[in-house]
Amino acid sequence: MTKKHLLILQPSGRRGYIEDGASLRAAARDLGVDIESICAENATCGKCKVLVEEGEFPRYGITSRREHLSPPEADEAAFFDRRSRMLKERGWEAGLVRLACQARIHGAVLINVPEESQGNKQIVRKSATERQIDIKPSIRKYYVEMTPPTLADPRGDWERLAKGIEAAISRVRSGEAHLPTVERLTIDYACLRTLADTLRAGDWKVTVSVWQDREVVRVQAGYAEASYGAAVDIGTTTLALYLCDLRTGEILAAESEMNPQIAYGEDIMSRIQYTIANANGLGKMHKAIVDALNRLLRKAARRAKITADDILEAVLVGNTTMHHLVLNIPPRHLGVAPYVPTLHKALDIKARDLGLAINPAGNIHLLPIEASFIGADNVAVLIAEQPYTPDENWLIIDIGTNAELVLGNRQRLVCTSTPTGPALEGAHVEYGMRAAPGAIERVDIDATTLEPRYKVIGEEQWNTGRVKGICGSAIIDAIAEMFRVGILTKNGRFRPEVVSKRIRKGENGAEYIIAWADETSIGHDIPISQRDVRQIQLAKAALYVAARTLLHEMGLERPDKIILAGAFGSYIDKTKAMLLGMIPDCPLEDVYAVGNAAGDGARIALLNVEKRAEAVQVAGSIQRFELPVDAQFQERFMQALDFPHASDPFPHVAHLIPGGQSSEQ
Amino acid sequence: MTKKHLLILQPSGRRGYIEDGASLRAAARDLGVDIESICAENATCGKCKVLVEEGEFPRYGITSRREHLSPPEADEAAFFDRRSRMLKERGWEAGLVRLACQARIHGAVLINVPEESQGNKQIVRKSATERQIDIKPSIRKYYVEMTPPTLADPRGDWERLAKGIEAAISRVRSGEAHLPTVERLTIDYACLRTLADTLRAGDWKVTVSVWQDREVVRVQAGYAEASYGAAVDIGTTTLALYLCDLRTGEILAAESEMNPQIAYGEDIMSRIQYTIANANGLGKMHKAIVDALNRLLRKAARRAKITADDILEAVLVGNTTMHHLVLNIPPRHLGVAPYVPTLHKALDIKARDLGLAINPAGNIHLLPIEASFIGADNVAVLIAEQPYTPDENWLIIDIGTNAELVLGNRQRLVCTSTPTGPALEGAHVEYGMRAAPGAIERVDIDATTLEPRYKVIGEEQWNTGRVKGICGSAIIDAIAEMFRVGILTKNGRFRPEVVSKRIRKGENGAEYIIAWADETSIGHDIPISQRDVRQIQLAKAALYVAARTLLHEMGLERPDKIILAGAFGSYIDKTKAMLLGMIPDCPLEDVYAVGNAAGDGARIALLNVEKRAEAVQVAGSIQRFELPVDAQFQERFMQALDFPHASDPFPHVAHLIPGGQSSEQ
Repeated sequence: MTKKHLLILQPSGRRGYIEDGASLRAAARDLGVDIESICAENATCGKCKVLVEEGEFPRYGITSRREHLSPPEADEAAFFDRRSRMLKERGWEAGLVRLACQARIHGAVLINVPEESQGNKQIVRKSATERQIDIKPSIRKYYVEMTPPTLADPRGDWERLAKGIEAAISRVRSGEAHLPTVERLTIDYACLRTLADTLRAGDWKVTVSVWQDREVVRVQAGYAEASYGAAVDIGTTTLALYLCDLRTGEILAAESEMNPQIAYGEDIMSRIQYTIANANGLGKMHKAIVDALNRLLRKAARRAKITADDILEAVLVGNTTMHHLVLNIPPRHLGVAPYVPTLHKALDIKARDLGLAINPAGNIHLLPIEASFIGADNVAVLIAEQPYTPDENWLIIDIGTNAELVLGNRQRLVCTSTPTGPALEGAHVEYGMRAAPGAIERVDIDATTLEPRYKVIGEEQWNTGRVKGICGSAIIDAIAEMFRVGILTKNGRFRPEVVSKRIRKGENGAEYIIAWADETSIGHDIPISQRDVRQIQLAKAALYVAARTLLHEMGLERPDKIILAGAFGSYIDKTKAMLLGMIPDCPLEDVYAVGNAAGDGARIALLNVEKRAEAVQVAGSIQRFELPVDAQFQERFMQALDFPHASDPFPHVAHLIPGGQSSEQ
Repeated sequence: MTKKHLLILQPSGRRGYIEDGASLRAAARDLGVDIESICAENATCGKCKVLVEEGEFPRYGITSRREHLSPPEADEAAFFDRRSRMLKERGWEAGLVRLACQARIHGAVLINVPEESQGNKQIVRKSATERQIDIKPSIRKYYVEMTPPTLADPRGDWERLAKGIEAAISRVRSGEAHLPTVERLTIDYACLRTLADTLRAGDWKVTVSVWQDREVVRVQAGYAEASYGAAVDIGTTTLALYLCDLRTGEILAAESEMNPQIAYGEDIMSRIQYTIANANGLGKMHKAIVDALNRLLRKAARRAKITADDILEAVLVGNTTMHHLVLNIPPRHLGVAPYVPTLHKALDIKARDLGLAINPAGNIHLLPIEASFIGADNVAVLIAEQPYTPDENWLIIDIGTNAELVLGNRQRLVCTSTPTGPALEGAHVEYGMRAAPGAIERVDIDATTLEPRYKVIGEEQWNTGRVKGICGSAIIDAIAEMFRVGILTKNGRFRPEVVSKRIRKGENGAEYIIAWADETSIGHDIPISQRDVRQIQLAKAALYVAARTLLHEMGLERPDKIILAGAFGSYIDKTKAMLLGMIPDCPLEDVYAVGNAAGDGARIALLNVEKRAEAVQVAGSIQRFELPVDAQFQERFMQALDFPHASDPFPHVAHLIPGGQSSEQ
């Protein structure tokens, strides 16, 4: 008999006895802990990094040693050689950090799977709250054995199969209250076409995939367990696609690409405008997005070593304009009052109708949308974060060119949206750019010398790399720092008495130089100008007033928890955002950045069909508020331009706020 | 006030007062009597010929005169000049036969609409039985007025429309028990795509077309009453398409074309073989049929002055192989035991999935099929003839390369099918051809001189025209006549003692010359050979034994009524068919030829959605019998080769049967 060893995985606490020589990643998966891997276990992507916790653990009755794993072979050693800086930065000791795809188990070990290496994040969400998502995909598979037809029993192939499926359902799901019946069962036409040959190829033993308990979408000869789906977040700027195993929830591949519609307009309004101004503008943008999604699908399928036909469903989310554009529905009416979408409700359409390169019999699900400016992506955020479950009040802010804000608890949810301008995404700021290699993403300013320090995306060290521009998170950083060190006054003006070689008069008023021309690849100084500061003030005032409106509506002074969704929310320094008054005051430990919650929501809807009903429920019950455009609003907006909001106490960042109110002009 | 005149239409007896100057055809339509027209009322097709009954009709209180109609103008006069022979043959007096599309009413008239001119045959079927078909199409139209969206009411377009439809339904259909609800209502994706613009183009007043009370398939700006559908009979040899007005049932255009799949094989088995022997054989034949149907659809739409988008549904019927081929489903398993179709049940698929050129949101309905060799066309025949309604026993024979036979009454129906060989369609007979111009369609033989007389399709007189070959009905005629005049014995042999210049020894045994080479365009004598006689004997024996098997199963000696369906059944001389023993003995007046009953059934299913349920019902309840292949069967088959069946009394054609049994051989 093979020797077995105890494997304990933290932080989940899952454990089990593993056969000697088993791969650590495979063993973890068997214990229900998915560890990321994109490179198909080739020791190149490094997504599966785990930490060996050395020591005696009497509580578990084991001694864990790095020697209990196979020593790193050439590929793994080469990987860590290339990343020695990363190990050093994180304080990880070489030899204790291993690639789970390479290490094999030869003794008891306690392993820590860091957050970033945890696969299957849609299953246990750890950001704002920890929560299990049951795997209940819309696709169920049944293995069906039939008696072959004879002259005495010449029933049609479909009639024979349907009867077999009925038998399989009653066998597999005997405990359930409402079993689907054959009478309701249909078979997709694309699937019907090849039915006869498949049944015979499988010698009357097949595996059928049934969608929503009512439509057969695939028949495979013999026994075929695997089942795949794609969750897609169609952002105005970025497309993100997750190819998932529908049985385990595991992400087999994550692919992303710029939204190619950018060629037709940077933001939503300019794309709507493009469809109005150009005869086939809609058709072109629709084709661009479908082509891009098909590229992502093909890449993902290749990586996961499956075919397009293996992907049986896709869930798409996006803001209302992206939703309409991907459906080839004219978005023009979203751009003018009263801002009406073509439909709110959730939609299922055939993949072939959209030209999406999954199984042609497969369905595409689009989550419902709340309103013109609160789209299916926000609904996805809601089912990911579930603000409709707690007693306490959560404020969810999904920040982009447009921000959507949701506030409430399990009794009541209110939402609103506000344009924040493109400044937060790095646009309309003089040297602003999107978060991409070459962009400054972090800025510090020394309070004494007023000298800045910056970090460029793609570089590991500060003040290195050829700078191309500055992205949203660094603009926030820079302005917060300029305020903190006293370059800016509370109302956002350059303080005239502060003198530095970094501060000068530019074309757009006073400006502070973050990087000199010779540090850049564009040959220009990169400044933050008075105008840039104004842009951010406008954006943060809009966000602030929107949050205040919802808090007022709910009769609250402040939320119990703030959840920042979206890539931007993950990149920004939450302390600095609060320092600027971008988000309401709240204990910093109660502010969570949850990343692409819309993408997570899409995955959740893909993996759990009941969550789609939940999406319909929340989209239908949430109360929408339009921000008023009255005098009081104007006044509040003007006040909100200050750092932080003039009339609002910000005790949680008070220690960072320079001077007193009295020191202000 | 305009003067009005009484118009009475026979045989329907419908009457009404018509404004002076109205077109006779339009007036008849207003009275519910549809008169055929294919040429769009251009006086060229002559389909609308009607007869003026001159005289005093005290019963109706009118005097009917030809002068009560406008005199024929140039076009109409020219038409009748061209057809003077036809008038003479039918004994119709010039001036009393008129084109209903041209004649205008200027006084009281009694008009007789001959059978052939009666349009709308699906509404009142007059052949075997007279029966009303209610117009209850699957498509219902609703006119919906909405309040435009405002900032205070920014519901999505679809949500707004759905609410409006609900209101319209409860207004229009208040009496009905189960009204469809908005919750169940969906909108086809193709239709959804243009919804926003349509609603606004109609200023929030639109007409929606709802399919099966559950799916919106069209939205038109404003009020739009018309609604169209197509019924298609896909024959192995011929395609027939009827474009119908779904409100009135009127046939707006009837188009037909050879089935282009003939290029890949004349009969079902050779087409199945083609799909097996050629890699893309199925794809080619599928494309050929879809292309042909699209040609017919375009022609019909052009004739009716509508667009493809106006056609919202199509019903297709065909034998099981045609059904599979049009659906792009491999038919190979239909060709080998146990002869299993891919599915039996009725099917609805999207027009766009089939590539059929109707509205892309429209649906295509395929009637259910009974078995491999008893297809959706037979089900169509059944819903057209309704043998499941009478107490008496009807025998329906649909004759083609394969014959389907149905026997029974409202208690029980049994069916079987039998190959009859291609002889009945003119194939495998030496100079056999399909019923087409140049084919001999009728043959008489003078009992004294043994000289034949023949009629060629496309010619009005006997013994004229260039003969190309001989079609099925004439082969039956010829053989029946050869038997009647004593050329053939009861068992089908040429009687050696009969001498004529027409009878000689040929390559295929003895033969009788119907037309000499110089009467043909092919330069060959056209004979009926001993081998041809054998072919027909085999076919008629197969038909006879099949009928006997069903009669035996039902415990009957003979049917109360015989219904011959299919073009062939219409062409053959029923007396001669009975004389040969092709059909069981039955009073000749109880033998009906109903023409393309399958096409009629397709139209009925198109026009009345309840008939589709009836089709499912009858397809599911009819009992199928395979003809046994035992010794007893062989013996009965051998006996059935005789003219007529040796052991069966045929009192209704006894006077035609030459000699006695004693006089044979």
